[in-house]
Amino acid sequence: MLKPLLWKAGVLDVLDQLQLPHRAVFESCKNFKETGEAIRAMKVRGAPAIGVAAGYGMAQAALKSKAKDPERLVKDLEAAGAYLKSRRPTAVNLAWAVDRVLAKAHGWPEASVETLRDVVVVEAVAIEQEDVRLCDAIAEAGAALFKDGDNILTHCNTGALATAGVGTALGCITRAFAQGKGLHVWVDETRPYLQGARLTAFELKAAKISHTLITDNTAAALMAQGKVDRVIVGSDRVTSQGDVANKIGTYALAVLARHHKIPFYVATPGSTVDFTLRDGKDIPIEERSSDEVLFVQGKAIAPKGTKALHLGFDVTPHELISGIITEKGVARPPFAVSLKKMLGGKSAVKKSKKGGAAKG
Amino acid sequence: MLKPLLWKAGVLDVLDQLQLPHRAVFESCKNFKETGEAIRAMKVRGAPAIGVAAGYGMAQAALKSKAKDPERLVKDLEAAGAYLKSRRPTAVNLAWAVDRVLAKAHGWPEASVETLRDVVVVEAVAIEQEDVRLCDAIAEAGAALFKDGDNILTHCNTGALATAGVGTALGCITRAFAQGKGLHVWVDETRPYLQGARLTAFELKAAKISHTLITDNTAAALMAQGKVDRVIVGSDRVTSQGDVANKIGTYALAVLARHHKIPFYVATPGSTVDFTLRDGKDIPIEERSSDEVLFVQGKAIAPKGTKALHLGFDVTPHELISGIITEKGVARPPFAVSLKKMLGGKSAVKKSKKGGAAKG
Repeated sequence: MLKPLLWKAGVLDVLDQLQLPHRAVFESCKNFKETGEAIRAMKVRGAPAIGVAAGYGMAQAALKSKAKDPERLVKDLEAAGAYLKSRRPTAVNLAWAVDRVLAKAHGWPEASVETLRDVVVVEAVAIEQEDVRLCDAIAEAGAALFKDGDNILTHCNTGALATAGVGTALGCITRAFAQGKGLHVWVDETRPYLQGARLTAFELKAAKISHTLITDNTAAALMAQGKVDRVIVGSDRVTSQGDVANKIGTYALAVLARHHKIPFYVATPGSTVDFTLRDGKDIPIEERSSDEVLFVQGKAIAPKGTKALHLGFDVTPHELISGIITEKGVARPPFAVSLKKMLGGKSAVKKSKKGGAAKG
Repeated sequence: MLKPLLWKAGVLDVLDQLQLPHRAVFESCKNFKETGEAIRAMKVRGAPAIGVAAGYGMAQAALKSKAKDPERLVKDLEAAGAYLKSRRPTAVNLAWAVDRVLAKAHGWPEASVETLRDVVVVEAVAIEQEDVRLCDAIAEAGAALFKDGDNILTHCNTGALATAGVGTALGCITRAFAQGKGLHVWVDETRPYLQGARLTAFELKAAKISHTLITDNTAAALMAQGKVDRVIVGSDRVTSQGDVANKIGTYALAVLARHHKIPFYVATPGSTVDFTLRDGKDIPIEERSSDEVLFVQGKAIAPKGTKALHLGFDVTPHELISGIITEKGVARPPFAVSLKKMLGGKSAVKKSKKGGAAKG
């Protein structure tokens, strides 16, 4: 399986996803600043992968710190954490991983500086290992929703490249295929960043799963022709009532799926469910650089000076969602009840109301 | 006003729209074969512009023919017509313009070869002049639907670049602006050919109308935010009950507009209404080269060997359409009644059931 993050002896090798699918180049991040820069530049992407990278960034801060006493080390960790968070301020999993490592460090007030370093590194490794298990559980729950012969439509990239494990929505697809189900996948190219064309097609090719790339505006015509049996996407953030923030274009797919009576699933870690937030309308939508719309692989597609709008994600209201797949199973409407029951009404991730979504 | 086709002394200068918006280069087509090649290569695009170009191609065939007698000239014209039609077999207006010129030629059985040449050239010029007047009438009818302050969303390119006049859907927008209405236009980039980014943004910039380029998958989010007041698109072919074939992505917009209770208008010449066809489902959807999805401006966006699907257009059922604007006014549902009443139930364009849509 493709691994976008490789941790070894204090160095984090990051697969530069901006260069996919043309070149598979790993970049060695030797300290937390280089790791933070890889996050900012979106070489690492996918909410879970960003969290894992941030955890290792904290481990690097601990290992490289010149602190002679634990108080000083904690101060260095706090500074590194603030730096890492600032690289992509709206990435919920980034802040979550940093805070988790910091909380762990704060939990060992009597420890020596050496022990504290170990605690931090172990916590970073634990974040990665948990993500692997989490992906497995999501994939297992989601795969059961697919039938032999299904045509499945997906958006963006939610596979191994977005996580430390097999992925979320794409993990469900690859797991169903591994179970012997014959599947065909419609891959939304996912403008403007083309994660579908660049990354999902790359993963499906590697996994030898039948797939066809389409422009995002083709999904509706395929649905009208009866060529889409199910839609499955990932999520960056889910509210307590099941409203879903995800890559721009997700909401359109949900409206179209409803119009054509096609099941629409969201596969996401339970940690992305924010029980402090009820209505998805309260999630502020991140505007990203318009250059990402105006230039495709460095080439201008519009006249000079054209103004463009690049919304990073959109919000899909719970009414349009057939099921939310987490590591605990498949939640069904009404999600305000089922998510609480499934996840205990408390998310592992502490979120700020200001936080948006961070999947690349 | 920008003119994509300039006819002078037997030469048709064609604005090579494949090079827009970076370069505005005219290519001189000196004979019907060069004109046919410009049509095939989509240097000329837009159903009306293709028809006008085809008319001039026939005029070139007449002017260049070495025929000494009218019978021979008619034979040459028939051969040229067959060649021109074969350049884009699904382009309804192409066949229509060729057949119109041929019918005219056949209508002068007693004429000398010189007179016959003149008849053909005059008919080609008439096709262009009629298109200019047609666009004006559509623009006038459609402009009345817009209010000061409207945010209008449009797809593909339906302006001066697609016609011999001010255009259809985009012509309605530029006319409303010329009438003093403050407008802002959301320009769908229109994958895979990016006609919105390349051509519509180019025209709106030239016309100094406020506009913002968006990826096609952004429209839904803007609609949910109340930032779209109206959607207007063109059409390649309309059935008697008002089903509309148009650029891929149109159908998705219509479903999304209905979901958000936003008026959805189609602006199109009456000649595109095909009264021989009732149900849009009977229009076969043209599959175009998958390279047009896989490469953006010559650069690959997906792994080598990726399979892609490129549907040239989709079909929007009449139920989703608020009004169809033609040169005779605005038809309202039920279109099976209103279109017949407005256009007399007989289209000027003779269509084959096999014909698809041809807007580039």
